[in-house]
Amino acid sequence: MTRKIDINSDMGESFGAYTLGMDAEVMCYITSANIACGFHAGDPGVMNRTIQLARRHRVGIGAHPGFPDLLGFGRRNMDCSLDEIRDYVIYQVGAMEAFCRLYGMRLQHVKPHGGLYNMAAGNLDILRVLAGAVAALDREVLMVAPAGGRAEAMARIGREEGVRVVFEAFPDRAYTPEGALVSRRLPGAVILDPQEVLDRALTLVKEGRVAAFDGSTVAMEAQTLCVHGDNPAAAEMVAGIRRGLESEGIEVAAMAEWV
Amino acid sequence: MTRKIDINSDMGESFGAYTLGMDAEVMCYITSANIACGFHAGDPGVMNRTIQLARRHRVGIGAHPGFPDLLGFGRRNMDCSLDEIRDYVIYQVGAMEAFCRLYGMRLQHVKPHGGLYNMAAGNLDILRVLAGAVAALDREVLMVAPAGGRAEAMARIGREEGVRVVFEAFPDRAYTPEGALVSRRLPGAVILDPQEVLDRALTLVKEGRVAAFDGSTVAMEAQTLCVHGDNPAAAEMVAGIRRGLESEGIEVAAMAEWV
Amino acid sequence: MTRKIDINSDMGESFGAYTLGMDAEVMCYITSANIACGFHAGDPGVMNRTIQLARRHRVGIGAHPGFPDLLGFGRRNMDCSLDEIRDYVIYQVGAMEAFCRLYGMRLQHVKPHGGLYNMAAGNLDILRVLAGAVAALDREVLMVAPAGGRAEAMARIGREEGVRVVFEAFPDRAYTPEGALVSRRLPGAVILDPQEVLDRALTLVKEGRVAAFDGSTVAMEAQTLCVHGDNPAAAEMVAGIRRGLESEGIEVAAMAEWV
Amino acid sequence: MTRKIDINSDMGESFGAYTLGMDAEVMCYITSANIACGFHAGDPGVMNRTIQLARRHRVGIGAHPGFPDLLGFGRRNMDCSLDEIRDYVIYQVGAMEAFCRLYGMRLQHVKPHGGLYNMAAGNLDILRVLAGAVAALDREVLMVAPAGGRAEAMARIGREEGVRVVFEAFPDRAYTPEGALVSRRLPGAVILDPQEVLDRALTLVKEGRVAAFDGSTVAMEAQTLCVHGDNPAAAEMVAGIRRGLESEGIEVAAMAEWV
Repeated sequence: MTRKIDINSDMGESFGAYTLGMDAEVMCYITSANIACGFHAGDPGVMNRTIQLARRHRVGIGAHPGFPDLLGFGRRNMDCSLDEIRDYVIYQVGAMEAFCRLYGMRLQHVKPHGGLYNMAAGNLDILRVLAGAVAALDREVLMVAPAGGRAEAMARIGREEGVRVVFEAFPDRAYTPEGALVSRRLPGAVILDPQEVLDRALTLVKEGRVAAFDGSTVAMEAQTLCVHGDNPAAAEMVAGIRRGLESEGIEVAAMAEWV
Repeated sequence: MTRKIDINSDMGESFGAYTLGMDAEVMCYITSANIACGFHAGDPGVMNRTIQLARRHRVGIGAHPGFPDLLGFGRRNMDCSLDEIRDYVIYQVGAMEAFCRLYGMRLQHVKPHGGLYNMAAGNLDILRVLAGAVAALDREVLMVAPAGGRAEAMARIGREEGVRVVFEAFPDRAYTPEGALVSRRLPGAVILDPQEVLDRALTLVKEGRVAAFDGSTVAMEAQTLCVHGDNPAAAEMVAGIRRGLESEGIEVAAMAEWV
Repeated sequence: MTRKIDINSDMGESFGAYTLGMDAEVMCYITSANIACGFHAGDPGVMNRTIQLARRHRVGIGAHPGFPDLLGFGRRNMDCSLDEIRDYVIYQVGAMEAFCRLYGMRLQHVKPHGGLYNMAAGNLDILRVLAGAVAALDREVLMVAPAGGRAEAMARIGREEGVRVVFEAFPDRAYTPEGALVSRRLPGAVILDPQEVLDRALTLVKEGRVAAFDGSTVAMEAQTLCVHGDNPAAAEMVAGIRRGLESEGIEVAAMAEWV
Repeated sequence: MTRKIDINSDMGESFGAYTLGMDAEVMCYITSANIACGFHAGDPGVMNRTIQLARRHRVGIGAHPGFPDLLGFGRRNMDCSLDEIRDYVIYQVGAMEAFCRLYGMRLQHVKPHGGLYNMAAGNLDILRVLAGAVAALDREVLMVAPAGGRAEAMARIGREEGVRVVFEAFPDRAYTPEGALVSRRLPGAVILDPQEVLDRALTLVKEGRVAAFDGSTVAMEAQTLCVHGDNPAAAEMVAGIRRGLESEGIEVAAMAEWV
């Protein structure tokens, strides 16, 4: 039996005169791109160009909405109301869809960014608002959420709201025994050794589990792996993960094709 | 023979804690709303609420994109490239369309705001970019441009780009003998007397012409009249125009229904 | 013995084309103005004009720094680091001081706004950062903080950092028995009856206490009363408080003159 | 006789998560830093850190105010009023001065950025507003303006407004026979050969003239040379200019020390 997996990465995070990330180097190794929508990063020109780049590499296009906090890159939690969050997401997803339409493409998925992602993982009322917003716009669009501890509840919310939830794991991040991400502020939260990251990716895909930081094993069913390409070493790690998965007979394909 | 006319007004210009305009008072008298898209005014919550208000009054929904200049309310000319302008418009129109979709509505028209409107009226390369952006998103959406001197060239550009251009006149603004608006910075540019404004509106609709500031007459074929409702007197003037037109047997209807 | 009191109010909250507040109506009744600095509200032109207005009425000028969240009017808590908060405050206070210098005036005080005020009231590490930032800029500038439960600790932090802390009470807000403000989200949090608000102001100034929502009495030593002038009724209430205090023989004077 | 020259460069143009420029590599070769003030680039944290970096290298600190256009990096002309420009400059310079004060430093100069610089070079009403704003804040602060064609008129305006104007030349930019910069949009506008740039720098300093693009010679008295350090090659060029000037016996020193 061939296992399948999607590889997603944050893309289109440049802004105006500012360049961030190595989109051109990483896009050829991934299958789904989470493209910033102009609130925490990205701008209309960057969105347009990033969609074209994704299209050339046949990468699935995702909207990556965040808080309206360019100064904090959307990483800071903001005490927004549920109505505000819903409207921020609809606005950003709509803008992204318009650029997709220019090239006859469809939006594949929505994945919240940074503080919004973290707040939705910790507060399922927020997750429900996100799911409802995506479903209201397009029921074919997938929503990406963290695999692990609360996946079952999240899948249920997705069904109730009318959107399919796709779960992602982070092969380069440490996990708690409960299947939650270890905070980036703690030592060891990010795994830097390329071989270890690849081994974790393989275990996630082939065995549906990951080692927690305390040595225990956590069950984790993920349809997509999140990778990062912020610097040359990271971009090389992405290439290594892609090659390592395929050399083990795993099919790497965009989530919309098989989820 | 019954003449028809559309009445459009800028709506949804509030932002966060700031309220601007008297949308609730004016919406019942107009047939097309130009709703700000979050760059020069408006925000996601305001857009959502304004679309609902327009829907209740069966008013056609327009996107009103502007320059990214909240501090200047989009009124200041900005030396943006054509590519930047195209992408700003696609972004804003896409965001507006997403809110329309929440309520099963379709976008009726696009009308650029402030500095962008003025620059497009003076530089047909910009008008062409706007027309192309609208056509690329939805060929059923109309584009509003100023009636008068350059209408013929604008209509041709619209045909070439694949979008229908609807022409608007301003009954409360002074015109030059060439059919251009007199700059707001000049005395007499804005006509404040309600009866005079109504008379000009009637002449525009019934006779297809308007008096220029020098007493000469300018031919001006407009399908929509732009009105303003920023204060109680202005809102009252809008009501008077609506009643005055209808009492003369003119049918006031949203542009998409008859243009 | 004559008791003294300062009356402070938020001013200069307009932005670009947006007008908020009734500054011209309220400025004549207050003695200290907390002027927004362009992050959550206000802009350079508004700051300049508001300082001139305060100067004409001999009102003490305060910087009112907030989070960089114009869309949320600075009311939403943001998970900023202490370093970020310090730099945001220095930036905003510096900008305000520059406008003061145009007119040969000195900054009287700094009072954080909205979410920043609330977070500093609940987290004394943040209050310490604010105090340190103010002291680093000008040790003659006062810092305003909430009277009540934690005033003693706040005064100590001020002494340690080198800034004098002035305590404020809110005559139109309900208090808990511990001397904390009742959240605005709860019913009864804001007192609307002008006579009741005046009575509370008088009790605060003359007796150094206020009635809590449960009927108990809380000791509260305040050197300044915060009032609001957002609408005509509120502006009238401010006038009533000023007259009511003076008719009881209380001297109303800017904090810098007597604290 | 020893000739003296200042070397200035734009610094502190990073923003939030975005890094721009090679400040740490370039700061050791320059004598004056034009530090962005948070409108077109820079943020409070970047300003604080850049001032500390400048201080370590004993580099004169300049405020580098720009238009409120982060998306366009302040390069786009904006049709702002003179009052708006004055208030934007006072705001930004005030914020920068506050960070200087943290470290017991004084602001050395003000140099407008991008579109504001270009508009002031072309419209002396704008230059006068800038000069007046600087003088109103601190008459010891210098203002940097382009050497060449209009220097005499600019110096006169500076005297009338009460600020000393320091003139800068661009050794890596082509000039017209009238002493104006050739637009960056034209081929050959930027000179990339390090030896040629150094030769031009030497001719500017030693002979007070520069070769125009047509081979003619333009007189140009400059007290400071503007250099760029956006990439490794550019940073190396800055180092070469510094070494080349000093090896010819020219003293490189901050403008405030000798102008």
